[in-house]
Amino acid sequence: MAYGEIDQLAINTIRLLAVDATFNSNSGHPGAPMGMAPVAHVLFNKFMRFNPQNPSWLNRDRFVLSNGHGCMLQYALLHLFGYKLSIQDLKNFRTIDSITPGHPESHDTPGIEVTTGPLGQGVCNAVGLAMAQAHTAAIFNKDGFDLINNYTYCFLGDGCLMEGVSSEASSLAGHLQLGNLICVYDDNHISIDGDTNCAFTEDVAKRYESYGWHVVTVGDGDHDLDSIEAAIKESQSVKNKPSLIKLRTTIGYGSLKQGTGGVHGSPLKADDIAQVKKKFGFNPDESFAVPQKVYDLYGKHSSEGAAAEAEWNQLLAKYKESFPKEHAELIRRHSGELPEGWEKSLPTYTPADDAVATRKLSETVLTKVEAVVPELFGGSADLTGSNLTRWKGAVDFQPKSTGLGDYSGRYVRYGVREHAMGAILNGLAAYGTILPYGGTFLNFVSYAAGAVRLSALSRFRTIWVATHDSIGLGEDGPTHQPIETLAHFRALPNCMVWRPADGNETSAAYYVAMTSKHTPSIVALSRQNLPQLEGCTIEKASKGAYVLQEVEGANITLISTGSEVGICVDAAKELAEKHNIKARIVSIPCFEVFDTQSKEYRLSVLPDGIPILSVEVMSTMGWERYSHEQFGINRFGASGAYKDVYKKFEFTPEGIAKRAIATVNFWKEVPNVRSPLNRAFQQLI
Amino acid sequence: MAYGEIDQLAINTIRLLAVDATFNSNSGHPGAPMGMAPVAHVLFNKFMRFNPQNPSWLNRDRFVLSNGHGCMLQYALLHLFGYKLSIQDLKNFRTIDSITPGHPESHDTPGIEVTTGPLGQGVCNAVGLAMAQAHTAAIFNKDGFDLINNYTYCFLGDGCLMEGVSSEASSLAGHLQLGNLICVYDDNHISIDGDTNCAFTEDVAKRYESYGWHVVTVGDGDHDLDSIEAAIKESQSVKNKPSLIKLRTTIGYGSLKQGTGGVHGSPLKADDIAQVKKKFGFNPDESFAVPQKVYDLYGKHSSEGAAAEAEWNQLLAKYKESFPKEHAELIRRHSGELPEGWEKSLPTYTPADDAVATRKLSETVLTKVEAVVPELFGGSADLTGSNLTRWKGAVDFQPKSTGLGDYSGRYVRYGVREHAMGAILNGLAAYGTILPYGGTFLNFVSYAAGAVRLSALSRFRTIWVATHDSIGLGEDGPTHQPIETLAHFRALPNCMVWRPADGNETSAAYYVAMTSKHTPSIVALSRQNLPQLEGCTIEKASKGAYVLQEVEGANITLISTGSEVGICVDAAKELAEKHNIKARIVSIPCFEVFDTQSKEYRLSVLPDGIPILSVEVMSTMGWERYSHEQFGINRFGASGAYKDVYKKFEFTPEGIAKRAIATVNFWKEVPNVRSPLNRAFQQLI
Repeated sequence: MAYGEIDQLAINTIRLLAVDATFNSNSGHPGAPMGMAPVAHVLFNKFMRFNPQNPSWLNRDRFVLSNGHGCMLQYALLHLFGYKLSIQDLKNFRTIDSITPGHPESHDTPGIEVTTGPLGQGVCNAVGLAMAQAHTAAIFNKDGFDLINNYTYCFLGDGCLMEGVSSEASSLAGHLQLGNLICVYDDNHISIDGDTNCAFTEDVAKRYESYGWHVVTVGDGDHDLDSIEAAIKESQSVKNKPSLIKLRTTIGYGSLKQGTGGVHGSPLKADDIAQVKKKFGFNPDESFAVPQKVYDLYGKHSSEGAAAEAEWNQLLAKYKESFPKEHAELIRRHSGELPEGWEKSLPTYTPADDAVATRKLSETVLTKVEAVVPELFGGSADLTGSNLTRWKGAVDFQPKSTGLGDYSGRYVRYGVREHAMGAILNGLAAYGTILPYGGTFLNFVSYAAGAVRLSALSRFRTIWVATHDSIGLGEDGPTHQPIETLAHFRALPNCMVWRPADGNETSAAYYVAMTSKHTPSIVALSRQNLPQLEGCTIEKASKGAYVLQEVEGANITLISTGSEVGICVDAAKELAEKHNIKARIVSIPCFEVFDTQSKEYRLSVLPDGIPILSVEVMSTMGWERYSHEQFGINRFGASGAYKDVYKKFEFTPEGIAKRAIATVNFWKEVPNVRSPLNRAFQQLI
Repeated sequence: MAYGEIDQLAINTIRLLAVDATFNSNSGHPGAPMGMAPVAHVLFNKFMRFNPQNPSWLNRDRFVLSNGHGCMLQYALLHLFGYKLSIQDLKNFRTIDSITPGHPESHDTPGIEVTTGPLGQGVCNAVGLAMAQAHTAAIFNKDGFDLINNYTYCFLGDGCLMEGVSSEASSLAGHLQLGNLICVYDDNHISIDGDTNCAFTEDVAKRYESYGWHVVTVGDGDHDLDSIEAAIKESQSVKNKPSLIKLRTTIGYGSLKQGTGGVHGSPLKADDIAQVKKKFGFNPDESFAVPQKVYDLYGKHSSEGAAAEAEWNQLLAKYKESFPKEHAELIRRHSGELPEGWEKSLPTYTPADDAVATRKLSETVLTKVEAVVPELFGGSADLTGSNLTRWKGAVDFQPKSTGLGDYSGRYVRYGVREHAMGAILNGLAAYGTILPYGGTFLNFVSYAAGAVRLSALSRFRTIWVATHDSIGLGEDGPTHQPIETLAHFRALPNCMVWRPADGNETSAAYYVAMTSKHTPSIVALSRQNLPQLEGCTIEKASKGAYVLQEVEGANITLISTGSEVGICVDAAKELAEKHNIKARIVSIPCFEVFDTQSKEYRLSVLPDGIPILSVEVMSTMGWERYSHEQFGINRFGASGAYKDVYKKFEFTPEGIAKRAIATVNFWKEVPNVRSPLNRAFQQLI
């Protein structure tokens, strides 16, 4: 392919948009966009298939900018190729309520697939997107209908490669032989602390080969467009390995400070901008200039993308004729709606049913709903037998050559890679045809905090099956017993933390988690058996909190979650029988959902006039929002049989009763006890 | 070295202690101890230098069991070599308040260097221990005085290698050329989900070579003691690279289920135990049996260790004669005490001083104290210029061959590796001569949550310089703006979260952090300038919270942290001038420290009778503990200039005043407002 002036013009236009936007906002990272403009040009204009008029076309090629601080590159491309992102949007870069924030956010900006910036995340999202493509293809493609065959492309820098989360996902991607994943490593030798020699001297190519990747090196990423093109072509031809193109570039190409850290994270100075514009043949007095020729060039490519989508739609129409059921299913899945009536498969329980661990009840939910919700796509970070995340007869998502499954499989062996799993869940959810969940111990969801945060910010429906949710895991001891974990994720905006108390609450947790299209969930599940509670239904629990046991003339409300609710029931008996204290019991499996209920409902659950004691074997942090007094564990746990551990920390009917009595006595002095739900003003949302 | 029957007997004794202890507690992991007993035997009996009578001998070889679930291996060794860990302690394995908990915890068990179990952490701790050794040697060793020359040995399994945190630390260890670090990879092909073929098929040896490690493979780790010994010897001889010994073993060696997942995490069945004991020539009717010959063998080695320490003490005595100052310094540093009067170097400020960002004030602290506290050993995860963690003239901790520093340097370029940095801080602190800190953005301390948790559990003095602490970082936007982070770490037991409001509070944060020998700290610091506050002193701020502005007949208390305290001061003026409301102001830079003050003091800060409004640009979670009403941000932030972002969320004098008025009005109805500090009962500690 012959490259000429027009290509150079397009490349320099991208560079200068990044220069102008960062200068205009007096903030941002011009260096990476200037260095990666050549590869971006080749990739977007020669290879990538997309239609800016329909950014959600299912079979579009996916692009992830893992080095998200370089987002002016991406914003410039989106603008130039005709996405709904105007020059004014570029001028609004990094200003309040713009669609061009400091790092790319997928929920607001058309053409941004995933939210990046926190380093290492994007490349893992790309692994998830590639897995989703492979799976969706395996399920829906038929002879003569190569419906789903898109590539996933990812740019990443030194920072992404240093982050462990990318190592985890890259090792898994090699194992999974994801041939449709092509990553470009911006080998510019610069990170914030200066030359990468100061901390990053490993042999990246060799490392990726050790993971089972195909690695190509391009020596001159600044000028050698032919080699860039050849490297991408070669990568496309390798079908059983993900590819890494190691591309030597010059950060801030064109700037007086090119090749130095000075151009990484600060706008260019005015005189530097003037010289680079002159050097590139642009008018130094103009800003945000786009030659019409560049719009034309990229517009042509976008038109071809639109035509490709139209052709694909014809293929889809034929597919509908031949495979009407599959077609309907694909359309439904892409809409994010679950099959009608799926919730009838959720198991329900009565108090007569056996005491069962909620992790086991979670397994029952998965087993019952997997057939009616085929987009459920699960896995575990090497704790399958403990998380109980794999329904009987599930097929593993594996390359065929392993003999362990195939890409139509819906169960992923993530290995001991919690953080990558979390980031991959985001990529899987972003693809559009999958409802992903992943299992680990609750304590180790913390390893993935960076990814969970981005699930919430990106508004992805991902589900964490977080078993062994407390000191109730027993012998494994303090290193494995969560104390701060629930408070952590309850404080995270747009994240549902569920801690069900029995079977119906477990079903409710899944019901709300699966039907909340824009919110991730963490479902905290017990290792130990819990009784099926009188007074609990899926409907009630779906409200986030509800009155489990009402009693007239109550002296106290006990509010609790998970394994402690049943103990509160026994404590209430103890209080009534031995202490003449009437306790009503509230179960609050999910703070976040309860907070969204009407104030009237909330006050019916936690009314004025009655002191409230919270009971949970965790940090009390946050419980003051719902209670006057808190019984919890503000220290690390202990290693021992779980009953011994509960006894040590006095989470017994007697231990709770003791504190309930103290609460009643203490609040007697206050004439009109206010519910803590009464507030002087509303929080901004 | 000829190995014989006695060696086999010792190895089998270790194996059977693990078998008996896990059977006895009906819980735990016999597989790894049975598989790794041979290498443990060779390493501990032929190579490791230690004195069980003095587990804190400075120059002992360090041992880290990164696959901490196999801790019965370590407990058995500690017992057999004569540490204060009895057969009864082994029988108490995994029971409440034993010194043999489910995973090794360093704070209670003699001979345990670091707390392991959460996978991937231990090997990073080992990197920190090796760095500490290299640095301490570079500072204190002199010609003829090779005082500090210990090795750091680490065992790790597949799980540790899959965790990204270990990838980060291993890449850095290769860069740092840590020749005294020798790791043994238990290549047993089994993880919890079964054969590692299902998720972990990378070429580990090649990967470690790509990091710059020396890699040796031993094909038969079950029997070939000579090759194990040769591999360790060879590794010792490689002085400029860390070593990885890839050791093929059989998990659960001797069990009927050997080589399978069945023996990983569950005790052996009784009949299996009987056969393995018979096979090993032990009496199947006896449990916890230790042949006297084994005690004798290991006792001899321990005696040699004691003799080695005695010899070392003689060397130290001579060192004292030749280098009295260095000797005194080494002894002091090993005691954990800071130099007398060091705190006089802490900078103090008056309201006349300039407004300065607390990250900059933190840099001033480091610059002022580094000379008087030479054990301060800092770094940043590739954000040096943003975190301001490097004092002027600092020397980098680097291998000399890089030309960028040497091992006497006290500043580490961690690369973009927050999680490894956190785990390395733990290893550095564990060594005993270093007070480590590390810098990153507050938001990315979350990447290291797993390591921070272990700092707290292990009671290590580590310090996070966590800059860009809020929406106040501005343009970088929601991906970088912490919302949940403070709540997360405030909920973590034994972790101090500081958010200083000005220069004196910044000095106070460092004062308490540096003098708290058994507690880690996270110091959250602003990017933007903050005024020096009237009424603030180091002494007051060191109490965790204090009254910044008192006013007689106050209508409201405003309680706040960091950058919002100054805005509260302006809000109080606004309230007084425009609304005739008297507001007193409390600054609470550290919840955890305030909680340890007397109730009398606490109630003097937050007295009854006055409603309290909290003000912090973060999740309100947890603030209910100190306030009646909360003004915060329970959503994600926004990208823009920081003043615009503060305005958007109404964190202005007017926005605070508005909510203060609402609070005063709302609480007027309540006759005797109680301070939220009044509680019905005390929490268990």
